[in-house]
Amino acid sequence: MRIAILGGTGDIGEGLALRWAFHTNHDVIVGSRDPERARSKAGEYETELDSRGVDATVGGFANAMAADRADVIVLAVPPYHVADTVEDIGDRLDDDDVLVSPAVGMQRDEDGFHYHRPGAGSVTRIAADAAPEEVSVVGAFHNLAAGRLANLDRELEIDTLVLGDDPDAKDIVSMLAEAIEGLRALDAGSIDNAAEVESITPLLINVAMHNEGLSDPGIRFQ
Amino acid sequence: MRIAILGGTGDIGEGLALRWAFHTNHDVIVGSRDPERARSKAGEYETELDSRGVDATVGGFANAMAADRADVIVLAVPPYHVADTVEDIGDRLDDDDVLVSPAVGMQRDEDGFHYHRPGAGSVTRIAADAAPEEVSVVGAFHNLAAGRLANLDRELEIDTLVLGDDPDAKDIVSMLAEAIEGLRALDAGSIDNAAEVESITPLLINVAMHNEGLSDPGIRFQ
Repeated sequence: MRIAILGGTGDIGEGLALRWAFHTNHDVIVGSRDPERARSKAGEYETELDSRGVDATVGGFANAMAADRADVIVLAVPPYHVADTVEDIGDRLDDDDVLVSPAVGMQRDEDGFHYHRPGAGSVTRIAADAAPEEVSVVGAFHNLAAGRLANLDRELEIDTLVLGDDPDAKDIVSMLAEAIEGLRALDAGSIDNAAEVESITPLLINVAMHNEGLSDPGIRFQ
Repeated sequence: MRIAILGGTGDIGEGLALRWAFHTNHDVIVGSRDPERARSKAGEYETELDSRGVDATVGGFANAMAADRADVIVLAVPPYHVADTVEDIGDRLDDDDVLVSPAVGMQRDEDGFHYHRPGAGSVTRIAADAAPEEVSVVGAFHNLAAGRLANLDRELEIDTLVLGDDPDAKDIVSMLAEAIEGLRALDAGSIDNAAEVESITPLLINVAMHNEGLSDPGIRFQ
């Protein structure tokens, strides 16, 4: 399967790109607004993988070109760029493509990080609203600490919650999630349930700040 | 230490009462609006504990009387009764008493359960706003599945997040939480961080509904 990670030069994009290229045989394509930067980062990921004995080819393209070449497109961009990014790539999407939304809106004050719930209800909902009607949107990978994801020496042993209104699209994303060693995909229902999932991300940062020995924590449901 | 569980005849109150009486030597007092019902439930808990070889005395009183006798008072009442309950017991509280808020506001629709964030920001904040100024309020035990908590045959091996603005009060509640076998207390910061903690509860119900083999799940940060 071909996976494009738009915003794949950012920290969560880097982690997903490295993990998929390291643990699976899926083709990974890095997308960026700047194609030169996409190619440069893709080269860095290849070097990192090569140092671990993995001979993977990671593509690097402008977002629209990356989306055009992929079956699954991850919107690893800041929450305020999600709608624009989906609109930019809209005419490159096929009906059976799947869009994946991992972004979360947060605000920080003196007490810690807080979930910033968008007017639409969730960032995942923003992505779904912006997508062409025939393209399925799935929420996933919201609560993964970027530093842990990108550190291939670190075990995950955590869960990711998968949300969506198209069961087949959810199955594809769950399969891709579980192809990453140590990551378990759990079904959290429809996109209307996304706010509760997204709001775990600021909580994870608060928990990491206030408890020793929990750096880049994830969650496990048990 | 004396722990009063107001609303201790309800499901989450039952679990906390049984666990503290079973795993610790703290005195447990069940509070209810109806003292007769409190005494009756306390008797049921004693019978359950006796059947497991634990000879514990569980008190049963009207809420105000239960609060009067306790050092730590858990507000295990529905979210819409939290403010009233705190006001009812206000003149029974000493300056070094600690109030604990485990309640969560939820709504259900066809997609699942959703967090109902109160205007004050969180139920924990409602409790803090209603409490006398000199009494510390701590948020804890928000994300414990009642059925699992009350089933003493079931291992916990999960976390509870502790929130508060008074470090000493948080320490007391964390100590009481960790006295329950298999429960780990994590510091989630101040009460302003409570919404993200409370919103995990509807998510846990959604996850239980959509995934086989996860009944009454809890969360572990790792």
